[in-house]
Amino acid sequence: MTGSVVVAGLGPGAQELITPEVTAALDAATDLVGYAPYVARVAARNDVRRHASDNREEIDRASFALRLASEGRHVVIVSSGDPGVFAMAAALFEAIEAGDPAWRDLDIRVLPGISAMFAAAARIGAPLGHDFCAINLSDNLKPWETVEKRLRAAAEADFVIALYNPISKARQWQLDRAFELLRGIHPASVPVIFATAVSEPHQRIDVVPLGDALPSRADMRTVVMIGSSQTRLIPRADGGSYVYTPRSLKAPS
Amino acid sequence: MTGSVVVAGLGPGAQELITPEVTAALDAATDLVGYAPYVARVAARNDVRRHASDNREEIDRASFALRLASEGRHVVIVSSGDPGVFAMAAALFEAIEAGDPAWRDLDIRVLPGISAMFAAAARIGAPLGHDFCAINLSDNLKPWETVEKRLRAAAEADFVIALYNPISKARQWQLDRAFELLRGIHPASVPVIFATAVSEPHQRIDVVPLGDALPSRADMRTVVMIGSSQTRLIPRADGGSYVYTPRSLKAPS
Repeated sequence: MTGSVVVAGLGPGAQELITPEVTAALDAATDLVGYAPYVARVAARNDVRRHASDNREEIDRASFALRLASEGRHVVIVSSGDPGVFAMAAALFEAIEAGDPAWRDLDIRVLPGISAMFAAAARIGAPLGHDFCAINLSDNLKPWETVEKRLRAAAEADFVIALYNPISKARQWQLDRAFELLRGIHPASVPVIFATAVSEPHQRIDVVPLGDALPSRADMRTVVMIGSSQTRLIPRADGGSYVYTPRSLKAPS
Repeated sequence: MTGSVVVAGLGPGAQELITPEVTAALDAATDLVGYAPYVARVAARNDVRRHASDNREEIDRASFALRLASEGRHVVIVSSGDPGVFAMAAALFEAIEAGDPAWRDLDIRVLPGISAMFAAAARIGAPLGHDFCAINLSDNLKPWETVEKRLRAAAEADFVIALYNPISKARQWQLDRAFELLRGIHPASVPVIFATAVSEPHQRIDVVPLGDALPSRADMRTVVMIGSSQTRLIPRADGGSYVYTPRSLKAPS
């Protein structure tokens, strides 16, 4: 009786962005574990057991899934976007490393998904078309000084920057401070993309110059992308713009 | 008679990693455009026109697709992985910006896919579980000095680093130089992942310490990921290891 734990990426929201690999894993599950809104998103069979939990309990959730698997259950931990990007995959391996040594022999798989930043980038053009980085703006699990150091390093080396978890009820000032820091390095004209609830019916994507970027455009469902010095806008006939970063960077002349 | 251009991400290789959104776009296409091996990968209808091209002709390929769409065709440009990551989406917008102004009124869509680095990360654990960056190691379109500057900035700020296009027949010394540079910043024990042909039958994933990383482990199908100072290995019963980067970073004590 060998159980299994699969960490599956549901993508940003739309059903048509869920891979067949993930759909097959959900169909084979005996138990679904995850943050309540993600568990609710899955149209699974009636006989699957659903274990929904709060947002901040990742390690408890992972340990619970591992215990179920030890009892022979086939557990899918559902994650938004890609589970390897600021989501449940790292939490699962933290739980495995700290937990029962027998957990290392379980059948463990991570199934990738469409990450929020790539879904958002696709909807607006190709802002991540050149070198880029992804930073979790939350300072719940790392010192704020580290976040600032990375923002500065990324902007000075002219990476496009994707910010995950830019704001929450408990973290209100960090995004404003990040914009302030970036305005000290980049021209005010650099495009900033606020992409909220991408691929869902209430999707909203705003593009504003860094000089005018306000944290109030972001909420917990937003990915914020800050262009490099090379990121460009192409005006469209409908009044909107495509945003893209060219592949080429010329040598300084 | 309005044509369309869709840039679709086929993911790393396996059919089960292609989103339903991309499958639907392929089913609706009149024309497929792309690098020959990617066009060959699509199991499309007999009446679809296939236009396969060489690897280095991205702008010509994009302009060709736009001209077809201007004639009312429904064109899908197929891209490996995610089209917005060092792939065809940026090339398409470069062609639109430089080309016929009427192209801006065409129906243009980018459909995200599973990128090589996320597929590779999922197979080995969660190496991208903390802040990370993606760098195209090719110096065909940017100065090598810029690549070095970004490698140094990323390692000094302790990002996990994913390297795309690490090596080719024409670019043999760059990956060795990158490892040398990173060994000057990171301990020799930092894990390096070489992930080749991920999700395909001949998939190969090697994990070696930075001190022993040799470019000969990489080819044109390889994504190389270099851990941060925090990236960890968990030994498995089968002799292999999971590789993951914890979500937490403690404040210096």
